[in-house]
Amino acid sequence: MIRKLIEEITKKNAPVVVGLDPMLGYVPKQIQKAAFEEFGETLEGAAEAIWQFNKGIVDATYDLIPAVKPQIAMYEQFGVPGMAAFQKTVAYCKEKGLIVIGDVKRGDIGSTSAAYAVGHLGKVIVGSKEYAAFDEDFATVNPYLGSDGVKPFLEVCKEQDKGIFVLIKTSNPSSGEFQDQKVDGVPLYELVGRKVAEWGEECMDGDYSNVGCVIGATYPEMGKLLRKQLPETYILVPGYGAQGGTAKDLAMYFNKDGLGAIVNSSRGIIAAWKKEEYTKFGEGNYAEASRQAVIDMIEDINGARM
Amino acid sequence: MIRKLIEEITKKNAPVVVGLDPMLGYVPKQIQKAAFEEFGETLEGAAEAIWQFNKGIVDATYDLIPAVKPQIAMYEQFGVPGMAAFQKTVAYCKEKGLIVIGDVKRGDIGSTSAAYAVGHLGKVIVGSKEYAAFDEDFATVNPYLGSDGVKPFLEVCKEQDKGIFVLIKTSNPSSGEFQDQKVDGVPLYELVGRKVAEWGEECMDGDYSNVGCVIGATYPEMGKLLRKQLPETYILVPGYGAQGGTAKDLAMYFNKDGLGAIVNSSRGIIAAWKKEEYTKFGEGNYAEASRQAVIDMIEDINGARM
Repeated sequence: MIRKLIEEITKKNAPVVVGLDPMLGYVPKQIQKAAFEEFGETLEGAAEAIWQFNKGIVDATYDLIPAVKPQIAMYEQFGVPGMAAFQKTVAYCKEKGLIVIGDVKRGDIGSTSAAYAVGHLGKVIVGSKEYAAFDEDFATVNPYLGSDGVKPFLEVCKEQDKGIFVLIKTSNPSSGEFQDQKVDGVPLYELVGRKVAEWGEECMDGDYSNVGCVIGATYPEMGKLLRKQLPETYILVPGYGAQGGTAKDLAMYFNKDGLGAIVNSSRGIIAAWKKEEYTKFGEGNYAEASRQAVIDMIEDINGARM
Repeated sequence: MIRKLIEEITKKNAPVVVGLDPMLGYVPKQIQKAAFEEFGETLEGAAEAIWQFNKGIVDATYDLIPAVKPQIAMYEQFGVPGMAAFQKTVAYCKEKGLIVIGDVKRGDIGSTSAAYAVGHLGKVIVGSKEYAAFDEDFATVNPYLGSDGVKPFLEVCKEQDKGIFVLIKTSNPSSGEFQDQKVDGVPLYELVGRKVAEWGEECMDGDYSNVGCVIGATYPEMGKLLRKQLPETYILVPGYGAQGGTAKDLAMYFNKDGLGAIVNSSRGIIAAWKKEEYTKFGEGNYAEASRQAVIDMIEDINGARM
């Protein structure tokens, strides 16, 4: 699957992913109004609103981008209808030829991680039938439980040609509390990185592994170091834009081949219509504002990686 | 909420929680057959089967136990219908007076953790209305992202009188890979424990905090140490029974007041009918087998904590 992601990145010349993290506050009023008229101010209404909002953004940007990254928490907060909107979003993006990275940050003991792996990337058996429940292409995975929490994901990746991105160094301000702690002089994020490389060896798919990692744009020095230590690991980079990471910071997340990293922006794209530089589009044209923000982001990132 | 949990534990004299982690392989054939006849061998059929299975166990045990702990992965693997079965299970258990610990192991950057906290423990705003989407009483939380991934849960706990159990030392064999690594001589799980105590201070509810922790029954020496270090932190203890933890191991997870810990068993209770000692009940009486297993577990644990 990483090979397919790289093909799409190369074809579109865009090492970027759009984070479909729809807060209701980002959804233009006319979309909320229509959804609430049909379903009332209910969880179903909220789910319809975020689905229509997503659809608009996907329709306006799918030709420019290789991938999307829906953050499942933003759907899960609306309960079962929200989860249905997540599933619908994943399916629609795949129909449009986009690769879908489910930002689910799951991870548990072995038998439980196996259920997550099956539900998000694999197929679950029901009697004599098999079903792909959420069917993302990649999922993000939390490493705190160690190898036996990650291995069930590796099994599914191998069987189904899917991929994962394991959290190494997250973009948030307090990520260092545990991740930066030094063990015999080596920070925990580096130890996790070594394990990611080890897990990744089993799952090579061309020059890169189907086991990638997450390193926040907000910690460029660590990105630089980990980039060198993990030459075959694709880096999913959150934290660009709204969280403070700049394109200059990002140059060092790429290998010399111009590959090796894919940069996410969520708010910066999907809520572009609320940003001063894009208000000219107007609330009704929020999707065009997102398209322009994608174009600007691609230019910005490509300027840095070349 | 921890005060309410303690009241229920005391009233029923049972510091135990039943893990509702329904694998289809645990569900008796007659229940699967009825569900598949109604919904086909579909995700809806699987969801109906696990819901009916859960209902049977809850009806047969709710008078004996204070709480249940549904593991969401076992529902999530069946997609949207599975999530509906999770929600139905949570609601039904609450109707029966049980406290529900959602074993969701969520955790992300601040704004995303806020969405998880709202979706599982709090209320989400839709227009002029508010909804509790999954509405568990407690949720388990992964600490890898540090304080700003946990704090949104604390906010919701304070507002809604709910609780969390933060992973400190998990029960699985490879949990030590990262959790046991020593930072200046102190294992990471102890550092996480110190943070749990700090977070917990903000959320006291009687003698204990609404911020509890998870320490596996499979690591009793660490349980003993952490019990002393975290006198006001309730410990949720997985790993008893099927994973190898014994009641003798568990004695040291309790404080001198006989409180401070609640022990989970999943497979050992819900799949009791498949265990040699309970096969006499027969597949059709799986719920009675679960009831007997609960009685035996309570006796076993109480023998150790007294």
